[in-house]
Amino acid sequence: MAVNLPLPDPAALKPVPGIELGYAEAGIRKANRKDLLVMRLAPTATVAGVFTTNRFCAAPVQVCKAHLEGQRISEAPIRALVVNTGNANAGTGDAGLVHANETCVAVGGLLGCEPSQVLPFSTGVILEPLPVDRIKAGLPQAVANLKADNWYAAAETIMTTDTQPKAASRTVQIGGKTITLTGISKGAGMIRPNMATMLGYVALDAKVPQPALDRLVKQAADKSFNCITIDGDTSTNDSFILIATGASGVEIADVDTPEYAALAEAVIALSQELAQMIVRDGEGATKFMTIVVEQGATVEECRRIAYSIGHSPLVKTAFYASDPNLGRILAAIGYAGVDDLDVSKINLYLDDVWVAKNGGRNPDYKEEDGQRIMKQSEITVRVKLGRGAESATIWTCDLSHDYVSINADYRS
Amino acid sequence: MAVNLPLPDPAALKPVPGIELGYAEAGIRKANRKDLLVMRLAPTATVAGVFTTNRFCAAPVQVCKAHLEGQRISEAPIRALVVNTGNANAGTGDAGLVHANETCVAVGGLLGCEPSQVLPFSTGVILEPLPVDRIKAGLPQAVANLKADNWYAAAETIMTTDTQPKAASRTVQIGGKTITLTGISKGAGMIRPNMATMLGYVALDAKVPQPALDRLVKQAADKSFNCITIDGDTSTNDSFILIATGASGVEIADVDTPEYAALAEAVIALSQELAQMIVRDGEGATKFMTIVVEQGATVEECRRIAYSIGHSPLVKTAFYASDPNLGRILAAIGYAGVDDLDVSKINLYLDDVWVAKNGGRNPDYKEEDGQRIMKQSEITVRVKLGRGAESATIWTCDLSHDYVSINADYRS
Repeated sequence: MAVNLPLPDPAALKPVPGIELGYAEAGIRKANRKDLLVMRLAPTATVAGVFTTNRFCAAPVQVCKAHLEGQRISEAPIRALVVNTGNANAGTGDAGLVHANETCVAVGGLLGCEPSQVLPFSTGVILEPLPVDRIKAGLPQAVANLKADNWYAAAETIMTTDTQPKAASRTVQIGGKTITLTGISKGAGMIRPNMATMLGYVALDAKVPQPALDRLVKQAADKSFNCITIDGDTSTNDSFILIATGASGVEIADVDTPEYAALAEAVIALSQELAQMIVRDGEGATKFMTIVVEQGATVEECRRIAYSIGHSPLVKTAFYASDPNLGRILAAIGYAGVDDLDVSKINLYLDDVWVAKNGGRNPDYKEEDGQRIMKQSEITVRVKLGRGAESATIWTCDLSHDYVSINADYRS
Repeated sequence: MAVNLPLPDPAALKPVPGIELGYAEAGIRKANRKDLLVMRLAPTATVAGVFTTNRFCAAPVQVCKAHLEGQRISEAPIRALVVNTGNANAGTGDAGLVHANETCVAVGGLLGCEPSQVLPFSTGVILEPLPVDRIKAGLPQAVANLKADNWYAAAETIMTTDTQPKAASRTVQIGGKTITLTGISKGAGMIRPNMATMLGYVALDAKVPQPALDRLVKQAADKSFNCITIDGDTSTNDSFILIATGASGVEIADVDTPEYAALAEAVIALSQELAQMIVRDGEGATKFMTIVVEQGATVEECRRIAYSIGHSPLVKTAFYASDPNLGRILAAIGYAGVDDLDVSKINLYLDDVWVAKNGGRNPDYKEEDGQRIMKQSEITVRVKLGRGAESATIWTCDLSHDYVSINADYRS
């Protein structure tokens, strides 16, 4: 199903010294599937995160934020993360907060740390009570198999409607030493992250002080998870977490150093890869679309127009059908809310094919050229606004029958 | 396919003295279907319209606006409207304007009026040249069958992906006399009107001075066509036109009179009926949903939340599946962009079933109660925000496999 997304090669997923991962089949929603993940961090690790802006943010997101704030004061570092699928623990009121905290108490008890040193995450159905007893019952199994090279299994564990696990590694040379980065992510619907996506984790073994890591997680999210959309629905549970274990001994002194720049480049590249994996495995996706809006007066207006195109059900169904019904793209540009847009300056390209020239059909455009591009599985839509020098890029997928099937059947 | 939408009874569609309608099969896109409509107005008629806010507004919309402005100066009243389906004449640049004007010249020649006294409308595919020669060739046939009781055929003529014609009549007593109102509309995709919908026409036989009619058309649009959404796509061609023929001899002196209030009530009711018909016949619709957001601080925030729910593909597919996966509604409320929303004050109802209480699942809510409501073909979603006294209501439909099929196949 996924668009040009090979399964990750387990052998290519590099362990990151300073982090171990363990999983369990806890039967949270369905039997016989991995649904509970524990990550144990070295005491030298720093952790930073960005979270959904949804006002109905889930109980675990609220607890995560509180624990990340708390460690700045207590200087007792985050030692573990715990993730369950099958239930989002969102729209669950005070009971949800109690359940998220109970989970942290249980993890802390098993790993010998304070509950406040544990970050909890949940993903799945909203508005249903978290089966916390099943989570507590499953935790010993997850802790028992904590291993540094469990990244593939970890990626499998956090899947919901994803058709395949999403994970990638890379390395970067800093100060003559090799820093290893490995990350996992999951989608695959309710994807229009506003701070981050549901869920992404990237670990690396440099030592990064908290302020630098806080900045890096935002930079990376803004250039990766905050540039994708599948259905325009911003989840209640979006979380993107960056972990610097420090185990390599390489320390990033400051954000103004070449070392920080090199690390940031690697983190952003890995985050983009993980974010694009979510789009390639978007619910029902058959096409991967890159939408580039150039020559805008502001980045904000470029993003607005890019999302207007990327969210339009009519544009998405035309791509699904490989039908060059490209006037729908002009319509989406036109209703994006950029009030002073001069449409006579707009040019539209599909890959290398010039479709609309100065706001109207390019006289040289031939239907068969558009058709040729639309049949591809990867397509770049490029819009030139002719009003400035700013630009923005987002990644999205098409809207297919399978999207409807998957979401009509999600709870069954 | 349409949701609880009986075919209009041709006998119940009342002629409005002062307006005649004629149609033709001009073969604009497909052979053997009515695709060209002419409406001829009495010289006493006043006409007002509201149009799409899409920046890529179609050539005929630009010409309509210019001709409506022009008549205020020239005092040469609008005498005819001409509507074609099969081609939107949008994204067509200067050639589109030439074609729209050519159409007006041809109609004026046949009816003996100036081109500037004709309003042109187009609906159909965007970014393709208007086959104006076929329109000009079809016009004599349309003019030849101009009749006062052609409303049913007129409603058929303006259909695109609509599965059935949309038309309604009503009467209102003003000053002891009967005023007749008849209107037609069409959808059925690219529907998220921002000033009006694509297309709605209401005619009545009171005499309404231009300033009062200008006000009335905006009032009616805001309470009807501006409260519906099917897919969130605002069309390039949305137009809602109100025609007061004056043929009854009843004159509305001013907007501050009881006569204006009575007429406004009737126009708004008829416009709501026509707008709701568009939703009931939304592309692939199987459910008709009324979304009411109450206790808001402003009408704007209530509308924003209502549209966030109404546009969510996840909410729409859950309704299609009759699956009470109602946490998706909370998620849509949460990402609507009302930044200071206190979710602990929010209550959610499905018809009479209290689903979420103070931001969490209502302890008394039973899945089977939600299931019972979700199986209905008409459902009211009611959200109480607990932060004010304002409210808003919108109407929408679900997202089905057929929506995808219809829009993947639209041009074939």
